[in-house]
Parts: sequence; structure tokens; C-alpha cells
Amino acid sequence: MCQLLGMNCNVPTDIVFSFTGFAMRGGHTDTHHDGWGIAFFEGAGVRLFVDHQAAIASPVAALIKSYPIKSRNVIAHIRKATQGKVALENCHPFVRELWGRYWVFAHNGDLKEFAPVLNGAFRPVGCTDSELAFCYLLQQLRERFGDNAPPLAELREAVGELARSIAAHGTFNMMLSDGAALFAHCSTRLCYVVREYPFATAQLSDEDVSVDFSQVTTPEDRVAVIVTEPLTTNERWTEFLPGEMKVFVDGTPLP
Amino acid sequence: MCQLLGMNCNVPTDIVFSFTGFAMRGGHTDTHHDGWGIAFFEGAGVRLFVDHQAAIASPVAALIKSYPIKSRNVIAHIRKATQGKVALENCHPFVRELWGRYWVFAHNGDLKEFAPVLNGAFRPVGCTDSELAFCYLLQQLRERFGDNAPPLAELREAVGELARSIAAHGTFNMMLSDGAALFAHCSTRLCYVVREYPFATAQLSDEDVSVDFSQVTTPEDRVAVIVTEPLTTNERWTEFLPGEMKVFVDGTPLP
Repeated sequence: MCQLLGMNCNVPTDIVFSFTGFAMRGGHTDTHHDGWGIAFFEGAGVRLFVDHQAAIASPVAALIKSYPIKSRNVIAHIRKATQGKVALENCHPFVRELWGRYWVFAHNGDLKEFAPVLNGAFRPVGCTDSELAFCYLLQQLRERFGDNAPPLAELREAVGELARSIAAHGTFNMMLSDGAALFAHCSTRLCYVVREYPFATAQLSDEDVSVDFSQVTTPEDRVAVIVTEPLTTNERWTEFLPGEMKVFVDGTPLP
Repeated sequence: MCQLLGMNCNVPTDIVFSFTGFAMRGGHTDTHHDGWGIAFFEGAGVRLFVDHQAAIASPVAALIKSYPIKSRNVIAHIRKATQGKVALENCHPFVRELWGRYWVFAHNGDLKEFAPVLNGAFRPVGCTDSELAFCYLLQQLRERFGDNAPPLAELREAVGELARSIAAHGTFNMMLSDGAALFAHCSTRLCYVVREYPFATAQLSDEDVSVDFSQVTTPEDRVAVIVTEPLTTNERWTEFLPGEMKVFVDGTPLP
């Protein structure tokens, strides 16, 4: 299985602290050493870094840990291959364009007997069930809403329905973002924390690193971090329920 | 205007030497300081690095210069903004998926009165004429060939026709690759060199760096480097003719 990390904020924020702990699981504190990837939205653009090396050994991961790229929506993934060989084209997150915006997707889990009919609008390049699910999801959104993006409430309903239908084939913990909202669906395991004023010090679980967020934030900042397993030892993480999807906007889950 | 760099090889090869000279033009030996980008195919996958900082100041460019990523097809671009603000979404190369493979595109030049009708299959995320041309090009390929990629000879003819029709709107020096072939169209300026056995020492124009390729190659290796302005002082670069398109496969232009 793999692990997922997402961040959704109301102002561009760097993910160095959370990624530092998360990347340790890529071969050090955990066994997810079959590649990793991270995508940052910056305005309408996306920076995608993928590597088939273990995150702890990757010079690209070292760059991410030292270079504070600021973003309002980030999705990261460390992989333990279950389907699909260890190759760059099978590394999450995946990126496609729909409605003139980029969509970023990462998945943790396995899908069985999942063979949706694709119409060719979005086709997998690699051989994972995850990329297939992403292509199917975007195809269905485009079929449903045509050439223009719907309001967020309709999008939320559609993504939720599609996630449930895909999750019927197995485990479908996933994160999806169009740069405005971050959709997180839980089959088995996902949790989140919202950091906001008054900020406190957080201590990583996977490495002896802590940060006092009150020193690096303003009172208006708000950051939601969503992850497979809690990243810190002294914050209260909220567990998703199995089958639950949450949509994060401006650093908080929509009610 | 911008500058383009492409590499097409018969075995995975690193581009550290050529990129080192090319990146110097991103704000040092030349004035292309409005962002840069580079895309490497690795198998079916693509690594894309884009940055809106000048290439000489970018920590990501420093990584590329020190980390030898091996690839058979690379396209790089340094930007001097003429249309579109300086933003990540306007940085070349652009990537889209068609026929289950990634396509990478970069462009140097300006297009005037270029407003093709898009059917929604591929839509620009940023606001450059370049990304619009790329979306139009892929849309037309898909309309022409349907759901399956044609043989290379047919693809070459179609890309050539489309490049000529787009070039009627202005300057269209461009590079396009699907990971197998590299298509290079010249409106005003493009040149190439093929490095093959017996290899010699090459000296960069933009920095005091040379490399003896005979020490780092095997006799079977063959590498074509395509660029806006020659990168070395002691190799014989072949100029493209205006209006000419060449297709590079396995490190050599097709006859």
C-alpha cells in the first residue's frame, strides 16, 4: 500500500515541515520505497516532481525539503508497488487538464475487477489501477458537465458519487485537486488537522523535528493537512470515516 | 523571444553538459530571465521541471545541472515573455496526454491573429499563444487519426502540415515529442549537431566548460542536440532552413 499527503491553505504555504516527516516513510520509518511524487499548484500552474527512487534516497526529495515552494494545494504520495512495475509513468500524483485547469490525483489502495470503458478523452500512460481510475473520473465529469466546470457544490456531489462507485471495487483512499478545492475520499484510512490561530508547536512523529507555527504565520493563516497516518505526536488529528469524502477549501473542510 | 533546446538519443543520455551552457542564457549570457522549463522522458513517463525564476537563479536548475537524469528525449526552454504574464502556468514545456502517451511541446516565437476553434478536448491553462498552438495541434491530430496513433510517417506528415499552417501566423520555432520521436520545426532559427563515434571534446560557448565525450560514451551511442543558437564553439552545427521540419529518431534526423 501507499501513503498520501495533502495540504490545502487559504494563503500560499510551504510544506517543508510535513513533507520532511512524510518522506521519512519512503524507505526509512516505513517501507514505501517504490517511488514518490508531489504536485504543487502555483496559481493555475502545477509543479510536479516524481521519482521512482525511494524518497529518502532521492536528490529531488532533498530539494523539496530544502526549497520552500509555497502553494495553496499540494498532493504527495509515496509508493509501495502493488500493481504496476516501478517506473516513472506509474508514480503518483498524476496530472491531466480538464476545463482549462490542471487536475492532480493520487491514490492509495487496490481496485479489483475495475475495467471501466474509456472513450479516449483521458487514457492512462502507465499500467496502474490508480491512473485508470483518475482517467475514468475525469471522463465522467466531462460527460456530465460538458465543456464548462460546474459550481463547486455540483462538482462535490459528482466527485463523491464517482468515488463511491470506484470504491465499490476495493480500497480507494484518494486525493484530487483542481487548484481551488482538495477532495479527499477515505475507504480505510485518512485523517486531517487544521492549523489556525492560535498556532502552537508541532512535533513530527517520524523525525526529531519540531516547528513553532506561531513564529512563521499570521493570525489569518489557515492550513489543513490531510494524511494517511498522523504526522505529528502532539496535535489532534481527526479520522475520516470509511466511505467519507471531505472537500477542503481555504484550509478548512466544507461543512 | 525565447530559446529552445532539444535532445534525442538512441540510449538514455544525460543533458547536464548542454543544459549547463543553455541555462547560462537564462539571465547571464543572454536576457531570457522570465522563467524556464525542461521535460525529460523516462520510459513512458515524463519529468517536468518548470520555474518562473530565471534559470541562473533557480535552485531547480541547479539540481538539473548536478543530477544526471538520463533520457532519450528532452525538451527545454528559457523564456523572455512577449505574450502572457510571468507565471508558472505560462512556462514551457507544456505536457498533455494523447493516445495514452505524453506529449511535450515548447515554442519560440509570436503568433498573430491566431485564434483556432477549440473543441474542448485540449484547452490552455495559461494565456500564451504557445500553449494554444499546442492544444490546437493535438486536437487536430486526434481529429485526423481518431483514437489510435498512426505510423510515424503519417504522423510526420500531419505534424508538418499543422506546423506550416500555424507558422503562417508568425514565428513558430517549436519542438514536440511523444517520447519516441522529436519533431523540430524552424521558422527563423534552429540548428543541430549529431554526436556519434568517434566522439571528440566539445567546448561550451556560454561557460568555460568542456567535455571529452569519448570518455563517457560507447561507440554505439548517438545523440542529436537541437538548439536555437549553437551551444559549442568547436562542433559543426547544421542550420535548419526557414520552414523546415526535421524529425529525430534514435539520435539522428530522418532522411
